[in-house]
Amino acid sequence: MRKNLWMFRAVVDKVPFRFKNPELKTVLSTDFADYTDLNPVNLCNRAKRVDKNTLEMRLSLKREEPTVKTEASASLLISCPDQQGIVCAVTDFLMRHNGNIIDLEQHTDTEEAAFFMRVEWELDGFALPRDQISEKFRLIADRHQMKYELHFSDYRPRMAIFVSKFSHCIRDMLSRWHSGEWSAEIPLIISNHPDMEPLAKMYGIDFKLIKITKDNKVEQEAQTLKLLREYNIDLIVLARYMQILSDDFCANFPNRIINIHHSFLPAFVGAKPYHSAHQRGVKIVGATSHYVTPDLDEGPIIEQEVMRVSHKDSVESLIRKGRDLEKMVLSRAVWAHLQNKVLVYKNRTVIFN
Amino acid sequence: MRKNLWMFRAVVDKVPFRFKNPELKTVLSTDFADYTDLNPVNLCNRAKRVDKNTLEMRLSLKREEPTVKTEASASLLISCPDQQGIVCAVTDFLMRHNGNIIDLEQHTDTEEAAFFMRVEWELDGFALPRDQISEKFRLIADRHQMKYELHFSDYRPRMAIFVSKFSHCIRDMLSRWHSGEWSAEIPLIISNHPDMEPLAKMYGIDFKLIKITKDNKVEQEAQTLKLLREYNIDLIVLARYMQILSDDFCANFPNRIINIHHSFLPAFVGAKPYHSAHQRGVKIVGATSHYVTPDLDEGPIIEQEVMRVSHKDSVESLIRKGRDLEKMVLSRAVWAHLQNKVLVYKNRTVIFN
Amino acid sequence: MRKNLWMFRAVVDKVPFRFKNPELKTVLSTDFADYTDLNPVNLCNRAKRVDKNTLEMRLSLKREEPTVKTEASASLLISCPDQQGIVCAVTDFLMRHNGNIIDLEQHTDTEEAAFFMRVEWELDGFALPRDQISEKFRLIADRHQMKYELHFSDYRPRMAIFVSKFSHCIRDMLSRWHSGEWSAEIPLIISNHPDMEPLAKMYGIDFKLIKITKDNKVEQEAQTLKLLREYNIDLIVLARYMQILSDDFCANFPNRIINIHHSFLPAFVGAKPYHSAHQRGVKIVGATSHYVTPDLDEGPIIEQEVMRVSHKDSVESLIRKGRDLEKMVLSRAVWAHLQNKVLVYKNRTVIFN
Amino acid sequence: MRKNLWMFRAVVDKVPFRFKNPELKTVLSTDFADYTDLNPVNLCNRAKRVDKNTLEMRLSLKREEPTVKTEASASLLISCPDQQGIVCAVTDFLMRHNGNIIDLEQHTDTEEAAFFMRVEWELDGFALPRDQISEKFRLIADRHQMKYELHFSDYRPRMAIFVSKFSHCIRDMLSRWHSGEWSAEIPLIISNHPDMEPLAKMYGIDFKLIKITKDNKVEQEAQTLKLLREYNIDLIVLARYMQILSDDFCANFPNRIINIHHSFLPAFVGAKPYHSAHQRGVKIVGATSHYVTPDLDEGPIIEQEVMRVSHKDSVESLIRKGRDLEKMVLSRAVWAHLQNKVLVYKNRTVIFN
Repeated sequence: MRKNLWMFRAVVDKVPFRFKNPELKTVLSTDFADYTDLNPVNLCNRAKRVDKNTLEMRLSLKREEPTVKTEASASLLISCPDQQGIVCAVTDFLMRHNGNIIDLEQHTDTEEAAFFMRVEWELDGFALPRDQISEKFRLIADRHQMKYELHFSDYRPRMAIFVSKFSHCIRDMLSRWHSGEWSAEIPLIISNHPDMEPLAKMYGIDFKLIKITKDNKVEQEAQTLKLLREYNIDLIVLARYMQILSDDFCANFPNRIINIHHSFLPAFVGAKPYHSAHQRGVKIVGATSHYVTPDLDEGPIIEQEVMRVSHKDSVESLIRKGRDLEKMVLSRAVWAHLQNKVLVYKNRTVIFN
Repeated sequence: MRKNLWMFRAVVDKVPFRFKNPELKTVLSTDFADYTDLNPVNLCNRAKRVDKNTLEMRLSLKREEPTVKTEASASLLISCPDQQGIVCAVTDFLMRHNGNIIDLEQHTDTEEAAFFMRVEWELDGFALPRDQISEKFRLIADRHQMKYELHFSDYRPRMAIFVSKFSHCIRDMLSRWHSGEWSAEIPLIISNHPDMEPLAKMYGIDFKLIKITKDNKVEQEAQTLKLLREYNIDLIVLARYMQILSDDFCANFPNRIINIHHSFLPAFVGAKPYHSAHQRGVKIVGATSHYVTPDLDEGPIIEQEVMRVSHKDSVESLIRKGRDLEKMVLSRAVWAHLQNKVLVYKNRTVIFN
Repeated sequence: MRKNLWMFRAVVDKVPFRFKNPELKTVLSTDFADYTDLNPVNLCNRAKRVDKNTLEMRLSLKREEPTVKTEASASLLISCPDQQGIVCAVTDFLMRHNGNIIDLEQHTDTEEAAFFMRVEWELDGFALPRDQISEKFRLIADRHQMKYELHFSDYRPRMAIFVSKFSHCIRDMLSRWHSGEWSAEIPLIISNHPDMEPLAKMYGIDFKLIKITKDNKVEQEAQTLKLLREYNIDLIVLARYMQILSDDFCANFPNRIINIHHSFLPAFVGAKPYHSAHQRGVKIVGATSHYVTPDLDEGPIIEQEVMRVSHKDSVESLIRKGRDLEKMVLSRAVWAHLQNKVLVYKNRTVIFN
Repeated sequence: MRKNLWMFRAVVDKVPFRFKNPELKTVLSTDFADYTDLNPVNLCNRAKRVDKNTLEMRLSLKREEPTVKTEASASLLISCPDQQGIVCAVTDFLMRHNGNIIDLEQHTDTEEAAFFMRVEWELDGFALPRDQISEKFRLIADRHQMKYELHFSDYRPRMAIFVSKFSHCIRDMLSRWHSGEWSAEIPLIISNHPDMEPLAKMYGIDFKLIKITKDNKVEQEAQTLKLLREYNIDLIVLARYMQILSDDFCANFPNRIINIHHSFLPAFVGAKPYHSAHQRGVKIVGATSHYVTPDLDEGPIIEQEVMRVSHKDSVESLIRKGRDLEKMVLSRAVWAHLQNKVLVYKNRTVIFN
């Protein structure tokens, strides 16, 4: 690819483009870097053929780089039975390897006698190489019956968005990703309707149409899983995806499928919550983002938000106003997950920070 | 009682009190009016015995006068099938009698083809005497199939508070009433427990203990109704009253019994909503004030409010924080009712302003 | 242009496209309709050259139609000195011409002795043609010293967005417009930086770069005004536009320039409000949308919203979270304006509904 | 006073009271303990004279016991320059003395390179006696240049309330204290007006009237300080107290005077904020609780809350609605302080939990 890129650059330098923007070359080279099978001649022809319009459009799609902290950090999410000395054991482990703690938060659920902790430390100066941390920490973990996850702040999770026909959530997500707000990759959009394909194309993201009916559900989910593996997906976000995932499917992504439900759960589970809210005459409506479990609308809640409504709000008005809630709540939940600040315990979440 | 009071007044006029505040007499006379078995001599002795401390304490309980607008106004709450010319007909009626409109708000529910309106106008200068307004307006009302209520801003509704053991709502209500925030009378507190009697006494309000069990419910509710009639009660407020009212009882006070439920209805109906909220792991909890109907927790919602919680909140913490929600939501609902700004339609409320 | 379009259609009918989507032709014809100087041959060549990718990308940009009410309505925004009979006079006027009132709201500012009213009625069945309404209503208006505005619900205001480098507000606005949430046109984006040009192109909106410095402000604003007239702009939205408009410029669009300020005004006027908020240690931050007047950050407030923050929020965190506030508050203010529900009086707004 | 109390107890034991409640004696003895000039004979006469009514009224004022956790805990509030190993050092200290950590929260302000921590642990089983903890911890503290505070959960801080004429905040505080919500003592109320004396009496709290004018400020503050020392006051709460405290006075209670300001600071500092808010036409109003420093309305903010208002709200309406904000915000700030969860740093607060 590097060689290819080099060739391409040589080529485009010679092509008499009619526009001056120097960024275009960079864009083009990135763009063409994928065409690993192209020889210089093809490249040259291709470059010539690309007209101003196309180039500018590609340019427009160039994503802004996420603003990442200069220094990478590691974090541990820990849960275990409550007992003396856990914080001490963990901080001692980090200190012995010269780790500088940036953030530490712990929570004890006295009712459940359960202990939860998140600790984040600078990798710069840490005595252990990344690939040995987990192994070394296991000794402490085993002693305290800990379950733990280890994350690195500079890893960009790969996200797939599942969507049906409503566009507000996916538009908001793509804007956040595209403007560099989210440090994540979105290589794949899957839908049971073709409506969002143009939007996916606008952002240069692969779009797969997988129509699911009662009859083909098993095969289609199998195909979906295959795609998710091919694209190395870490996290699935259901951005108003109007299909129920099977238990088997869910089992493949425990606590890694985030859904947005357009009501203040557990009020108004199921379909048409705004209609039900209007019917009941509530004065406040909400939206809920949760991890997907086999029990519909019953998974661990990550985030909720509400807004005041009145008798003046028709169902249509609730739907319109609710869109803003939905996209905000979903994006907050995704953000918390991307920051590795969510820990699930007994169908509830501990959200650190 | 009246005779007794008269005697008492005769007595106190003769007693050489050492303090000058003229209001003291009024306070004292109210205080002693209850002692129906006292003869003049006893009364006199009693009055002498009452020391400065006692008097000042009673005086301290003197309620501040509600801050009422100098000018009284009338208001109409109207609902009818939607049709042309309603606003025009009503405003024309008021104009013909020289009424100056202070406030007018209308709402059309297009789905139900229903029309709702509240109009308030100054009584000063209005050509019709109070007792003829309804009669004259009926002509217009009938023409448009209107249901309507007529209210006067200077009437102080008489409120009975039903309470069990939790004191936060009733304390807040009594503070609002006592400091003159609410233009209403609270002559009666009814409870199934004796716990709140001292509080009632502090504020000089009659307290009636009516223990309700499964076996005595019918008689006890009959006795309660008798009391409510004796005290001329307009509005019942259930300030965390832990008894379910029978359908028959409710039927006596349609849209005139206000309850506070300690959850964001319709989530967590029934008992122990904070426990359920904690169990479900919600990120927001709420409180709901509604009119009581025979269907438990299903009556028309008047007001709701919520607050953010987290995994750090134990059930006890939810209960503690929730108290503030409950008292605020209940007092807002009572305020809206006292302002005659609530209109009930098909188990929903239209809240004007 | 029409002729050009016709020619183009003739051409594309003959071009052997490899894809079937019939909408493409429409898209293309719109696209090419601008090229007024193209002759048929050029058009044909151009059409041939456009490859599948480009076309699909253009297609993707096709805007969804705003969901408009089937029936058009008219509305009047009225302000005048408070006096008897205004509501009656207005509703009588509508009734005499057979107008069916959909919505009526009035407000009396007793302190200022000022009266405000918004009334909306169905145009279907209304006896007056649109162009005679204002003229006929003037008779009533003059009698009561009314100022009034007349609006029709099916008119789509033409909006220009002014933007600098921050993209979150304009992205959100374009999403709302593009998904048909807003019944408005956005034909023009003006910026003092080139950064947003690609985004404008993505959505097929004209982008004009007008760099304003202290030295060229007068000429550049003149040029801007010329552009705004050419594009028939009704409303200017400053989507985090980092230039101060001159008094003269503002005078051209009274109550028709909407700004978003990233603080809870009047706290933290001027630059870097999040830095100031952090420095002051506030527990809540906000955003404010207001009409622009010559006094910086002092114009009539249309909408505000806040969110809770804590000592854990760095300035960067406030900026990140604040983006969501800013885009939501700005879009709510624009929505209220587009609905013709904002009335300005003495540097304050009356927001109907 | 002690002697007097003893005498009184001797007396009341002999008086043939007609009621049985044993608590009455305690109430009475407290009540009469103040009458330091009474001789036994006077006391006896006095006790006889007190009638049933008075006694029950005093009884009614008996405060409910705060619901305290069965187990006492200790907590440390720590701030120091950021450096490696602090958490480890602190938790290691606790572990070595067998301390079971209930709660630990830390915060690093990277900008200021400052470290903040709160740790709470069970006293039951802790190897160090209470009075040695601070001394032993000092060794660790000094090594890391820590400032720290040590608190015990079962200590009830002694609070003085300063009040002027508005009663809503003090009523709410007294309700919380009286119902056992707050684990604190309120032995003293100080005011520059006599209005709240009856309320103080209702709750059996000493009331001192100290009228402050420009001329007598120095002496009166000296007298106030003397009273505060006599009553062993830990915390002063200004419950809408309309006097400005001198710098010298403030210096005596650093971070131990809590004020409530009726605006969303820093907007609308100084007098009449609701008038200013109305004038400015804001859509949201707020209240702010902060520690008092010599700079008026500029002290470290502890808590803020807001509520939505509209053009319909007159100044009176803002004042009425604002009362609820003020009392809620003030009580939350007091709660956080009582829980020892507030740490002040550079005029900002770190609020743990």
